[in-house]
Amino acid sequence: MTAAIPDSHRDLLAAPGVGVLSTIGPDGRPQSMAIWFLLDGEVIRTSLHRSRQKYRNMLVTPRATLFVFDPASAYRTIEVRSDVTVADDGDLSFLTRLLSHYGQDLTTFKAPTDDRAVVTFTPARVVTNG
Amino acid sequence: MTAAIPDSHRDLLAAPGVGVLSTIGPDGRPQSMAIWFLLDGEVIRTSLHRSRQKYRNMLVTPRATLFVFDPASAYRTIEVRSDVTVADDGDLSFLTRLLSHYGQDLTTFKAPTDDRAVVTFTPARVVTNG
Repeated sequence: MTAAIPDSHRDLLAAPGVGVLSTIGPDGRPQSMAIWFLLDGEVIRTSLHRSRQKYRNMLVTPRATLFVFDPASAYRTIEVRSDVTVADDGDLSFLTRLLSHYGQDLTTFKAPTDDRAVVTFTPARVVTNG
Repeated sequence: MTAAIPDSHRDLLAAPGVGVLSTIGPDGRPQSMAIWFLLDGEVIRTSLHRSRQKYRNMLVTPRATLFVFDPASAYRTIEVRSDVTVADDGDLSFLTRLLSHYGQDLTTFKAPTDDRAVVTFTPARVVTNG
């Protein structure tokens, strides 16, 4: 069952912000990284290169958490504990959408554009503060 | 062995900022929360009430990760994957130090002050960006 994203904090996921994605590493420790993300209906998606450690973590343990602050108040936050699925982005259509949300495109994007995956976070539990 | 905190990003831990603490929950999912923290030599400490889920998570799995952004640039970050130890803070001396770092004291602190623990994060691996 997908947990609902509350209207009170939906803006934090709808805006082109920077989120903290936490996965579980091979040694059992959480690993965190800053990511761009796109709210897509009731799920959240990001684009990762398949060589990234965090991508490989989620293949092994398909559970991850996205945490986002309100840039205007660090005490207003949303935590989305999620189940993870991955898919190809061979034609880069998702990456293009994601970059567009952040005012960029494939020509301005500095990271490798080969071998990109779309990673989808389906909320299992959502915790808000503030 | 304790991982070193690089001088290049030490300022992010020395400042009174808001960090994202990720622990591992009972269902195996990462859980994230915003915390205040204090860099204390080569370790980082925070204060948690013993009733908090994240505190209980760290008793079961004493591994946690602190992630901190540079408030001036979300692309300059430090990730501190840590081993966790806990201790009593019966006289609230640690909580008092932590609050002082944030310009507060016990009289202005709104959360419960009974049953507080000092949680110490000993860096096992440190990853910086930007």
